[in-house]
Amino acid sequence: MRNLNLLTDFYQLTMAQGYFKKGKDENAVFDLFYRTNPCNNGYAIFAGLEQVIEFIKNLDFKEDDISYLKDQGFDKSFLDYLRNFKFTGDIYSVPEGSVVFPKEPMMKIEAPILEAQLLETPLLNFINHQSLIATKAARITEAAQGKKVLEFGLRRAHGPDAGTLGARAAVIGGCSGTSNVLTGKKFGVNVSGTHAHSWIMSFESELEAFRTYADNFPNSCILLVDTYDTLESGVPNAVKVFKEMKEQGIDPDLYGIRLDSGDLAYLSKESRKILDDAGMEDAVIVASSDLDEDIITSLNIQGAQIDLYGVGTKLITSHGCPAFGAVYKMSEYNDKAKIKISDNIDKVTNPGNKKLIRIYDKDTMKIRADLIAFQDEDIKENGPLTLFDSRDSWKTTTLEEGSYKLREMMQPIFKDGKRVYNSPTVNQIKEYADIEKKTLSEEYKRLTNPHIMKVDLSDKLFELKRKLLNENS
Amino acid sequence: MRNLNLLTDFYQLTMAQGYFKKGKDENAVFDLFYRTNPCNNGYAIFAGLEQVIEFIKNLDFKEDDISYLKDQGFDKSFLDYLRNFKFTGDIYSVPEGSVVFPKEPMMKIEAPILEAQLLETPLLNFINHQSLIATKAARITEAAQGKKVLEFGLRRAHGPDAGTLGARAAVIGGCSGTSNVLTGKKFGVNVSGTHAHSWIMSFESELEAFRTYADNFPNSCILLVDTYDTLESGVPNAVKVFKEMKEQGIDPDLYGIRLDSGDLAYLSKESRKILDDAGMEDAVIVASSDLDEDIITSLNIQGAQIDLYGVGTKLITSHGCPAFGAVYKMSEYNDKAKIKISDNIDKVTNPGNKKLIRIYDKDTMKIRADLIAFQDEDIKENGPLTLFDSRDSWKTTTLEEGSYKLREMMQPIFKDGKRVYNSPTVNQIKEYADIEKKTLSEEYKRLTNPHIMKVDLSDKLFELKRKLLNENS
Repeated sequence: MRNLNLLTDFYQLTMAQGYFKKGKDENAVFDLFYRTNPCNNGYAIFAGLEQVIEFIKNLDFKEDDISYLKDQGFDKSFLDYLRNFKFTGDIYSVPEGSVVFPKEPMMKIEAPILEAQLLETPLLNFINHQSLIATKAARITEAAQGKKVLEFGLRRAHGPDAGTLGARAAVIGGCSGTSNVLTGKKFGVNVSGTHAHSWIMSFESELEAFRTYADNFPNSCILLVDTYDTLESGVPNAVKVFKEMKEQGIDPDLYGIRLDSGDLAYLSKESRKILDDAGMEDAVIVASSDLDEDIITSLNIQGAQIDLYGVGTKLITSHGCPAFGAVYKMSEYNDKAKIKISDNIDKVTNPGNKKLIRIYDKDTMKIRADLIAFQDEDIKENGPLTLFDSRDSWKTTTLEEGSYKLREMMQPIFKDGKRVYNSPTVNQIKEYADIEKKTLSEEYKRLTNPHIMKVDLSDKLFELKRKLLNENS
Repeated sequence: MRNLNLLTDFYQLTMAQGYFKKGKDENAVFDLFYRTNPCNNGYAIFAGLEQVIEFIKNLDFKEDDISYLKDQGFDKSFLDYLRNFKFTGDIYSVPEGSVVFPKEPMMKIEAPILEAQLLETPLLNFINHQSLIATKAARITEAAQGKKVLEFGLRRAHGPDAGTLGARAAVIGGCSGTSNVLTGKKFGVNVSGTHAHSWIMSFESELEAFRTYADNFPNSCILLVDTYDTLESGVPNAVKVFKEMKEQGIDPDLYGIRLDSGDLAYLSKESRKILDDAGMEDAVIVASSDLDEDIITSLNIQGAQIDLYGVGTKLITSHGCPAFGAVYKMSEYNDKAKIKISDNIDKVTNPGNKKLIRIYDKDTMKIRADLIAFQDEDIKENGPLTLFDSRDSWKTTTLEEGSYKLREMMQPIFKDGKRVYNSPTVNQIKEYADIEKKTLSEEYKRLTNPHIMKVDLSDKLFELKRKLLNENS
């Protein structure tokens, strides 16, 4: 087991010591939420919860942690407290794979302030990373219009976790598999891959390299055709080997070619013709080479003949938007609602202990809006529901009774420090995320200028927010 | 110990099995190099070698790895081989913290092809990640013009390794410390931090929060002043607390304020005035809030009064350039030089077993150029040295004898599978990187449109490359 106990910002520990020495052990409520969608997407996919749960379960300061902190000047009494530290609070969260929107709580932590504070950095680290990659994967698979996308980015990921947990998140977000073997082993997702240019270069000829590969992997045989000359050498040699396989009575589950450079639109169309002319209509064409949602969209427009995309760097680093900005803000302390003021109205927080309610159209089960309310508010399906925009509060919409369905999004994960939730498998989370995406109308899913989902506040929450803002200004 | 044995792309294992079954155990030489500098910088800082060494040292396939691969359809004979796998080859590398340039070999791996192939993905993962962050840190610290920069990005990093190894790389690249406690513990670098807005919000008043913090950490007391109103409340309250400390005879090593939002140029100048008017010229002003090299440059131009920068998201994700494109290409197989052809002339590789020589001006010890030559070429300091541009080969420069110094950049790391190199500490690597950066003339260090360092080929290498290109076209 890896020791991640000190995976935190130093100030979490200085604050913790401050709370400890002052005897501040009142309960605090913290919300975990984000402010804007990565890459101007219309939504995000929440991911990383399983790693948060593992982290909390394993949080147990060891003697070497304590001794390091002692050297950093922390007090003996506080270190004795840490030695016996155990999380005793409650955590609520939307399930992994959920569609989420800016400014709504995705997680809620209720615990003595010291404990809640100590969780901030690791929770944000896990959730920010995986929600980012899951959301980018959702964009890329959306662009692929039903064609499969494989995650290939380990070599460009920001270290082993970025590769391994990133591939996990990519599968949740929509990828069909990954090249990362460790992710396959740890999370039971599909792994795949064939060979590199170095394979070809280690043989006297491309043809010999292809033959040897086909001998070894007759059942799943994708040949990389761009080492020397794709259309003059690579594809014709591949066709020759596929013919030889057929002559030997081999009928592979999957066979075809991979293009990894050059003009993918042109090369895929020309390759398709060569394969089809050889009677190999069922041979697949895999394409990779610095792909992202924009390039895939462009390939589609050009009528590229690509059956499967391998996406590496720009998925695993979320190129164009490499950070997911979730934050962790106190909303209540010692039973008193708290608000964080800012000159920037978008940065003012929502006070109080809250819940997140999703409102669906009852007929289509598409999301109409989200509603943030106090935990103890009774929001019911009987009666009309009036929503208003919290920034333009004169804009209201009333949903008739019977036309909508409500769903409370956050579920209990820890109660009194005890885990009360079992993480689904990654493949189950992926299935759930696929269903979640179907609750979005097309306008929210388009890659450019999507509709902005309304996230409304209950009347009571709106009133309290206004009151606290007035008191503080 | 964490098991990273399967941290690789699936195709490395299919190729390995293919080589194994074909009995291909000839030696291959692979070069690790990159093609373009991140963020259009004039150079990069090489980092991640220590983790590569650890990875190779610990590479030892366990029964659960083997059993997973068996389920993926790998052959028993190959799995038996993997069970006893041990790296037996040689590895050469430039030291961590070295200044490097595009297209020159930073590492060289000589080993039986199967072994060399199995190292590709993990090596690239570690080197790409840390070289990226070290280079971004070099840009940001360059912009800070001698002011200290602290790494604060753990919460936005791509998982635990991205945060922890990223902070390691940030320190190598130029940061003075990090907020990441785990990095401090593992690598012995400086950690620091004070408190967050939640600390302030948990007290009845900002003043009480400041006083409690000062009580707890009288020796290093940086107060966060932007929770309510920076100039009306935060700074005046901080001044009050600092006065109280002085009245109590406390003389802190470090005290001052931190600005984390708003117009940092304006707020820092106004805060400086308030502090100076109170006779606190030695109070420092720390600034954070989505900083990067561009914003820091702009703050400098505006005359902002900032003594220390905390840089988070945009450093730890290398915003604007989130991937370092190092690749791993075969240059020799079975004693025969290999070249990878491409329509894109920039992607054609340099064939053969090579070394990297750095040429310094003897008087200034600034880098004049780098030279790639065959390993067995004798490049000497006696006699004039003629360099030519490998793309514009009519452009030549001759350095007179006595006017230049040569340095062979790559050092042996593994010989016959045995480690022959001990990694310096991170602080030592940082010192070395600081010296390395001083070997660059200012023109190569500027953040926009820097000079492009010449990386030349020896006559012999140029001739072989031309010959192999002609044979293949």
